[in-house]
Amino acid sequence: MYGHIARILSKPGEREALLAILLESTGTMAGCLSYVIATDQSNADALWVTEVWESKAAHTASLSLPNVKAAIAQAMPHIAGFDPRAETTPVGGIGLPGDGNLWW
Amino acid sequence: MYGHIARILSKPGEREALLAILLESTGTMAGCLSYVIATDQSNADALWVTEVWESKAAHTASLSLPNVKAAIAQAMPHIAGFDPRAETTPVGGIGLPGDGNLWW
Repeated sequence: MYGHIARILSKPGEREALLAILLESTGTMAGCLSYVIATDQSNADALWVTEVWESKAAHTASLSLPNVKAAIAQAMPHIAGFDPRAETTPVGGIGLPGDGNLWW
Repeated sequence: MYGHIARILSKPGEREALLAILLESTGTMAGCLSYVIATDQSNADALWVTEVWESKAAHTASLSLPNVKAAIAQAMPHIAGFDPRAETTPVGGIGLPGDGNLWW
């Protein structure tokens, strides 16, 4: 598995607009096991996106999907900064396909 | 929903031991929608834990569960630092109960 954790900063006051675009974009992404979009409780312009993919290749491939490319183009004018926090290797837990407490 | 994103640093070389304890601890936690434990690809002593709960109260209550309290006690000797990155409000995505693309 491959994981990606990032914080996205919207332009001031544009978080809701950015959020709506991101939520629309998560229709069908092959190999995506988890993709959680969340607002930051302490920063009115910050969003967090935490992702789990079957592989890094699946994540990379998703960036070429028409709906994802369209969403990126729509989102860009609302984005002030993109702050990747970590690339990870998810190893288990709760709420992933195959049920929790498995080692992948 | 309530989200929590944290990085945990193990004492040097003790990440695997810490990981095993954390994976054991995720048995039954009421109100937990997602709990992903992942290793950091760029830091051999770092783990990330990204959580989604039905409510902040459910997260707080989990800290009193016997299995969680026992895991914390076991884990502490292996931990060099705990670095909470964000409290969030998850708003949608893929892989959460109720299926993706829902607004909560």
